[in-house]
Amino acid sequence: LERHGTVAIIGVGLIGGSIGLALRARGLAQRVIGIGRTQATLADAERKGAIDAGTTDFDSGVAQADVTVVCTPVGQIAAAVIRAAERGPARTLVTDAGSTKRLIVEAVERNDHARAAFVASHPIAGSERKGVAHASAELLEGRVCVITPTAQTPAGRLDRARSFWASLGCELVEMTPEAHDQSLAFTSHMPHAVAAALAASIPDEFLRLAAGAYRDGTRVAASDPALWAGIFCANRQPVLVALTAFQDQLAAFRAALQAEDEEGLRTWWDIARGRRRLFDARRPTLGTESADGRH
Amino acid sequence: LERHGTVAIIGVGLIGGSIGLALRARGLAQRVIGIGRTQATLADAERKGAIDAGTTDFDSGVAQADVTVVCTPVGQIAAAVIRAAERGPARTLVTDAGSTKRLIVEAVERNDHARAAFVASHPIAGSERKGVAHASAELLEGRVCVITPTAQTPAGRLDRARSFWASLGCELVEMTPEAHDQSLAFTSHMPHAVAAALAASIPDEFLRLAAGAYRDGTRVAASDPALWAGIFCANRQPVLVALTAFQDQLAAFRAALQAEDEEGLRTWWDIARGRRRLFDARRPTLGTESADGRH
Repeated sequence: LERHGTVAIIGVGLIGGSIGLALRARGLAQRVIGIGRTQATLADAERKGAIDAGTTDFDSGVAQADVTVVCTPVGQIAAAVIRAAERGPARTLVTDAGSTKRLIVEAVERNDHARAAFVASHPIAGSERKGVAHASAELLEGRVCVITPTAQTPAGRLDRARSFWASLGCELVEMTPEAHDQSLAFTSHMPHAVAAALAASIPDEFLRLAAGAYRDGTRVAASDPALWAGIFCANRQPVLVALTAFQDQLAAFRAALQAEDEEGLRTWWDIARGRRRLFDARRPTLGTESADGRH
Repeated sequence: LERHGTVAIIGVGLIGGSIGLALRARGLAQRVIGIGRTQATLADAERKGAIDAGTTDFDSGVAQADVTVVCTPVGQIAAAVIRAAERGPARTLVTDAGSTKRLIVEAVERNDHARAAFVASHPIAGSERKGVAHASAELLEGRVCVITPTAQTPAGRLDRARSFWASLGCELVEMTPEAHDQSLAFTSHMPHAVAAALAASIPDEFLRLAAGAYRDGTRVAASDPALWAGIFCANRQPVLVALTAFQDQLAAFRAALQAEDEEGLRTWWDIARGRRRLFDARRPTLGTESADGRH
């Protein structure tokens, strides 16, 4: 098959490593080059089989790339995309795996060269675990990958990006960068903030009695602080919108509780349960996977 | 063994049914009598092997009980405890599985007869699933059971209650009803309200992009509305205290986000992650169990 040619992966952590593993397991690339800041990480990735070779030299890493996938923290993506477009061959497709899209797309599109090579993407397959040690060839399989083309996105590159993410087993969804950012603010970013607030609000002395609701409600609070601080800042306004919606729900709960309105609490809970059931009906595979397979 | 003699279980749902299954699987009871409101539920419980026999006649069900365990919704527990103490034999131990303790203990202790027979308990083993269909002999195994004796609790009954819950595989913890209610408000009741608020705040149109953080953060929102409205009303003040602590954390997050304080967000998240890691270190078995085994 080898249909994607040489693929350069910038940032070989959980997502970048999983992309490399999937490309190699499926025989989709002629060669997978990992680009990272330290030799140690690249050696881990190579040992795990996520890349054929690794380099800390960005420019030589992307020089022969038919496809470059930028998998760094969001704050570094735009600069890496621009540089990969400038230093890669003329044919190169540059795409990314960032959790936010608008700021990245705006920054890249200010650069003529990069705009002609770039298709913004977000495979929704994060985890509270980080690093290539937790990467797997199946991480992306069956997951939604959002592609966010604009009027400026070249049609040829868009087709190649679709083919790239689909070949990894992703279900493709397309929308504007703005729609992506608002959706993810509601479905991922705000829920992450809620999990961290929950973890932070429970005094240590009570943890002995904590059980399933605490465990699941705080799971993603184990995620990397720098990664999430970056995502929140890169998606500030949409996260504030989602946060307001959440705080309003909490205020409604508090008001009913203060009024000892048992009937009101029941009605409020019933609506919440209906939403959750809708999710279970629409995403049955996500709902039943095991704790070990959570991503 | 049969050391607990005849055990009456009032309310044969998830918890009551699991107690019956464990008693019978471990050969701990001479006879397990289920007491319920409908013949259909009792027939299900008997078919599943959770009880030896069932009856809708409360008084005849408890008449021969060495131990009566009240597993009804919290709002009905005190009245059932008092009636079981009055209609059971003089030797009877009455205990319960309610998620809140102070109001129940206060109501029971106003009755001389019931006070002499009662030991308040809470095996922490709930689930978003309800009904005897989801009951299992292993549900209570390794779970914490909080026993909340007061100065009024008779020492003999307390020993028998300890023996009863320990024989089901529970790890025993003892504290006052007030300490229990505040602990559970933080570790369970408030996290349940947060999960429901999260589920309610996310518009349907975004659910397609929801993944792991949403799934785990809203899991317990699938729980029974009437059950939870009852728990919140029976533990109003402690839940309000926990809710305030949570809302304060969220306000701190919002302030840092509004100020675009990336360093502040990182520090805030780091503290939350530390709490969550403490939980993982203390409750390793709860942290790794599979989604299907969640209770």
